[in-house]
Amino acid sequence: MTNKQIHLAKRPEGLPGADTWSLEEHPVVPPEDGQLLIKQHYISLDPAMRGWMRDRKSYVPPVPVGDVMRAGTVGEVIASRHPKFAVGGFVTGMGGVQQYCLTDGKGWRKIDLSLAPLTTFLGRMGMPGLTAYFGLLKVGALKSGETVVVSGAAGAVGSVVGQIAKIKGCRAVGIAGGPEKCAYIKDVLGFDAAIDYKADNLYAGLKEHCPDGIDVYFDNVGGEILDAALTRLNRGARIPICGAISQYNAAGRMVGPSNYMSLLVNRARMEGFLVFDFVAEYDTALREMAGWMAAGQLKGEETIVEGIENFHATFLRLFSGEKIGKLLLRVNV
Amino acid sequence: MTNKQIHLAKRPEGLPGADTWSLEEHPVVPPEDGQLLIKQHYISLDPAMRGWMRDRKSYVPPVPVGDVMRAGTVGEVIASRHPKFAVGGFVTGMGGVQQYCLTDGKGWRKIDLSLAPLTTFLGRMGMPGLTAYFGLLKVGALKSGETVVVSGAAGAVGSVVGQIAKIKGCRAVGIAGGPEKCAYIKDVLGFDAAIDYKADNLYAGLKEHCPDGIDVYFDNVGGEILDAALTRLNRGARIPICGAISQYNAAGRMVGPSNYMSLLVNRARMEGFLVFDFVAEYDTALREMAGWMAAGQLKGEETIVEGIENFHATFLRLFSGEKIGKLLLRVNV
Repeated sequence: MTNKQIHLAKRPEGLPGADTWSLEEHPVVPPEDGQLLIKQHYISLDPAMRGWMRDRKSYVPPVPVGDVMRAGTVGEVIASRHPKFAVGGFVTGMGGVQQYCLTDGKGWRKIDLSLAPLTTFLGRMGMPGLTAYFGLLKVGALKSGETVVVSGAAGAVGSVVGQIAKIKGCRAVGIAGGPEKCAYIKDVLGFDAAIDYKADNLYAGLKEHCPDGIDVYFDNVGGEILDAALTRLNRGARIPICGAISQYNAAGRMVGPSNYMSLLVNRARMEGFLVFDFVAEYDTALREMAGWMAAGQLKGEETIVEGIENFHATFLRLFSGEKIGKLLLRVNV
Repeated sequence: MTNKQIHLAKRPEGLPGADTWSLEEHPVVPPEDGQLLIKQHYISLDPAMRGWMRDRKSYVPPVPVGDVMRAGTVGEVIASRHPKFAVGGFVTGMGGVQQYCLTDGKGWRKIDLSLAPLTTFLGRMGMPGLTAYFGLLKVGALKSGETVVVSGAAGAVGSVVGQIAKIKGCRAVGIAGGPEKCAYIKDVLGFDAAIDYKADNLYAGLKEHCPDGIDVYFDNVGGEILDAALTRLNRGARIPICGAISQYNAAGRMVGPSNYMSLLVNRARMEGFLVFDFVAEYDTALREMAGWMAAGQLKGEETIVEGIENFHATFLRLFSGEKIGKLLLRVNV
């Protein structure tokens, strides 16, 4: 058996070109004692991957040049000499952009397909869903009746943020790019309003759709949208900082939020977080989210691309916005 | 009796010119029922005054053009038809840049000169001291053994921040402009280290003097110093946003902190606050601070300028940095 892998060939400047990656084929190695072999079905494509490619101190070490590109995955255990993982079980972890993953099991979790379909464990029932859940409820400290604005609202995280806001009795306003995404978050996901940042005036849109101001702005994008949201904060507002995708491929310095003094005027806070810090609460959260899914309150779209060879082009869709909901690569079914 | 007043003559762009103000003389009016007349001794000069001159929604309405310029003051009650304020008592409030203030008493507090000298009620025992106290202890949630960095460290707020940090068993590192201020905060106030932002490399200075990283960065200045501090945050760090004096006279948009994604990496937060929100706790705080003063743990320098006619030139010293500690104008002694 052969294992096709995408390696990080060099560190890109700005938007990664095709020569950032190399496709390699290696024989699949059977597990030794304490290891398991996973046949990976889906690779998750996440904006955070751009950060992992950077040679800079962060919450995880950068991916070394020459290594398999880091990525979240779901797959099936096809061989095991590990006491915790049995053959035939499904698991999720940081398996990397490759068809097979040989691992000692560290960081891998078993998934329960009776709760939700396999792909959702990379989306609503995976890191993006958990990021939305803890970012909104813990970091955002959401209270019923408040107004929530989320950017990247048609994406894997943003779409869950808005739906949880609705479940919690809040007003949900989404910011997304283009009429299709805006219609999706309103008509399918049940957001109260959508602002198309490519067509609408952001400031006017926020004024119109947040008549009582913003209590939580969940930020996935940074840049101009963060600056606009800062102008409409309520007193005591919270801004969970989840990402800044508008800035990830900037060649020079990132653009900081020039309206940040609104935090002072409104006694508001901006707070960064990482979903990994809430690992002890994952199971509780996932059970609750499974209940919402079963009740039809937590929907999600997936954009699935076939074939590990298409990794580069698919990765770029994170930044061009040409996808809806969770972006996945199917590598091995 | 004549009351010399400084009126806001027009809204300035950038650094206010002399024509921003007009000096007017009006007769002193005796109090009517429910009013008191205050002979003001000292006017407080604060960076926040620049914000009050701007025609923009904020935590207080802008000073109307033509009105007496808003300012904190201390003075003596010289006539009273108000049940709460007796003639001969000393008071502090927002008396404005004028020699006499006629008021209904709203927002005025009596001060106890047995606790501390009159001028300190505009400094360590006034808004700047209380801002440091609540910003560091409540918003900054300081814990013993942590490292505190404060900008504007030789100023009225910053000098108190560093001394409270020391009292609480923390490492205090101050950032100030010039060797005189740096020597002052180290040798007189007892900071552990000082960084001269005009001469030293900020990034290297923070690395050297914060070997265990930064737990609380108390920001008075914004701009490049905020960006540098963001690069040295510890996990769970707090940044109380007290001001951004480096940006107050910027003609265009303010510069936002381009390194703000450090908040995410370090699960840190940046939080604005206003001292007025803690009014219910002022008395408790002032008693504690009076104790520290009596014990010689809370020192402070004052730069006192004579004469209301010198208001404009004195005001500019807030921004040029040509002062140390609390900047006051004596208008009526």
